[in-house]
Amino acid sequence: MKALLFDYDERLKLKTDYPEPQLALGEAIIKVSRAGICNTDLEITRGYLDFHGVLGHEFVGVVQEVSTSSEKDWLGKRVVGDINAACYRCETCLSGRHTHCPNRTTLGIFGRDGAFAEYLRLPVANLFVVADSIPDEMAVFTEPLAAACQILYQLHVRPTDKVAVIGDGKLGLLVAQVLRLSGADLTVLGRHSEKGQIVARQGVRYIKPEEGKDIREQVGGECDLVVECTGNEVGLAMAKALVRPRGTIVLKSTYHGTPAVPMSLYVVDEITLLGSRCGPFDAALRLMERKLVDLNSMVSFEFPLIEGMRAFEHAFGHSSLKVLLNI
Amino acid sequence: MKALLFDYDERLKLKTDYPEPQLALGEAIIKVSRAGICNTDLEITRGYLDFHGVLGHEFVGVVQEVSTSSEKDWLGKRVVGDINAACYRCETCLSGRHTHCPNRTTLGIFGRDGAFAEYLRLPVANLFVVADSIPDEMAVFTEPLAAACQILYQLHVRPTDKVAVIGDGKLGLLVAQVLRLSGADLTVLGRHSEKGQIVARQGVRYIKPEEGKDIREQVGGECDLVVECTGNEVGLAMAKALVRPRGTIVLKSTYHGTPAVPMSLYVVDEITLLGSRCGPFDAALRLMERKLVDLNSMVSFEFPLIEGMRAFEHAFGHSSLKVLLNI
Ligand SMILES: [Zn+2]
Ligand SMILES: [Zn+2]
Ligand SMILES: [Zn+2]
Ligand SMILES: [Zn+2]
Repeated sequence: MKALLFDYDERLKLKTDYPEPQLALGEAIIKVSRAGICNTDLEITRGYLDFHGVLGHEFVGVVQEVSTSSEKDWLGKRVVGDINAACYRCETCLSGRHTHCPNRTTLGIFGRDGAFAEYLRLPVANLFVVADSIPDEMAVFTEPLAAACQILYQLHVRPTDKVAVIGDGKLGLLVAQVLRLSGADLTVLGRHSEKGQIVARQGVRYIKPEEGKDIREQVGGECDLVVECTGNEVGLAMAKALVRPRGTIVLKSTYHGTPAVPMSLYVVDEITLLGSRCGPFDAALRLMERKLVDLNSMVSFEFPLIEGMRAFEHAFGHSSLKVLLNI
Repeated sequence: MKALLFDYDERLKLKTDYPEPQLALGEAIIKVSRAGICNTDLEITRGYLDFHGVLGHEFVGVVQEVSTSSEKDWLGKRVVGDINAACYRCETCLSGRHTHCPNRTTLGIFGRDGAFAEYLRLPVANLFVVADSIPDEMAVFTEPLAAACQILYQLHVRPTDKVAVIGDGKLGLLVAQVLRLSGADLTVLGRHSEKGQIVARQGVRYIKPEEGKDIREQVGGECDLVVECTGNEVGLAMAKALVRPRGTIVLKSTYHGTPAVPMSLYVVDEITLLGSRCGPFDAALRLMERKLVDLNSMVSFEFPLIEGMRAFEHAFGHSSLKVLLNI
């Protein structure tokens, strides 16, 4: 089959003769319809996560094969899927934290081929049926939208909270679209490009911070909650400058290396730093079905899988939002 | 009056002719009975917090003077006092976070002379009457015990939680004494000295981590909550190694400089890092009155104020716990 992979020679390659995934007990084979390129995919091609194989973890597709007759109702269903294939048997899984299962593999990220291919396999337990009203180009956002929803799973965001989102990339804009639904007083801080207009149109304050001016003044006061979506030290320092004493900073992006963090300031101001990763797919699907998020505007380009190499070039472009692959 | 101060020439000095504090509106003059030396005092003498003046913020004393007749009931009362003198007018104070008031001064730490003197002044609003059943040598621990109680103010510690405290200094032992009351499965990790026996006697698991052995195995599994009381990178790394996914690390100590923190691990495992500082005096007093904590064992030495220089030498000793000054 056709597949876009990051190979052991540390190069991104489009193969046309990649072996199809083999059905395993409790799993389904899914024919991928569309997939989205995420920053994690870009990072893997820079060698960051030490993953080799088919890339991709954002997808929508149709169930092609299942392993037992009790699962045959899944056949032909249009689905999205949780990317963490957990054991559902260990202490972590049984505590309701399956996305942290120490035995997990992760679609296109760790120990399991991903979605930039004609077919993929995932446990049936990971699948969610997509309502007919949600087109493929929207359903493909379920995974990153779920990651944004994870903030609301972890935290109580009050409609009276003052909230800032640092970063106006794909993740920052999705986070802002979810947090605006809380009714909170919300500001997105970014480079003030065209793409920020997506949230500005939705009534979210969108600013490019001016250097040399007090950052709190620019967002109209200190924040109860700041979501850091840049993954760099400067973004984290800005988050600290914005958050109030006893406020919360959600770390929504990973950081390269070990950033130097003025930890004493966090102690003295009793700040909560909260790491946040994968989220609830069902909640993300409900937001899409209710048309509460604008995902169409988030798509910059779409390429057929066969032009996957070009798709990655575009995804690396700074002004790009989501680049989709039509499989 | 006699006072032990860190002077502008960056030296610790005992003066006998230091001016007595002047009564201000809403404040009380307190005759100090006993005071305790804290690690923060030691750090100040190393030049860390840029404070100059009378040191000391742990004290018990007797109210000597008040500024208005409506406060005259305080006269002669034995009291301890919250060290943060807040404005009680700003947005932060009115949000119930007076210990973070941006206009605050802090006893013996910032903008206000401290307790290692015959007299000190504090707002009447900061004072708490000490019950007769609590002797001075115990009451002097109210401030650090309140800081330990702050963890229970910030977090829900369940009786079923697995909890580790990293560090067996004064702070670590007080934190352990408070957390054991929750019923949680508790381990203190320290240097395994005599002083750790204080908590070992109370039914707390007390271990010295063996190098090269899995740290989780040594405490019997991963922890829901880890309280970091060392203030160094090694302690923080140990906390990260112990805490479970979605668990919490409380940062109870300040850090020198800006430690390098592998922040991505915290994001991937969705860890909560929670800074924790000053706490509730009333709760600490209740624990003492109910004899739920062993503070007598925490005292290593007691010196008269006039021997304050010697007291500091002892406080700097690694095997010392609390060094008290008898004023
Ligand atoms: Zn992703
Ligand atoms: Zn598991
Ligand atoms: Zn202290
Ligand atoms: Zn205030």
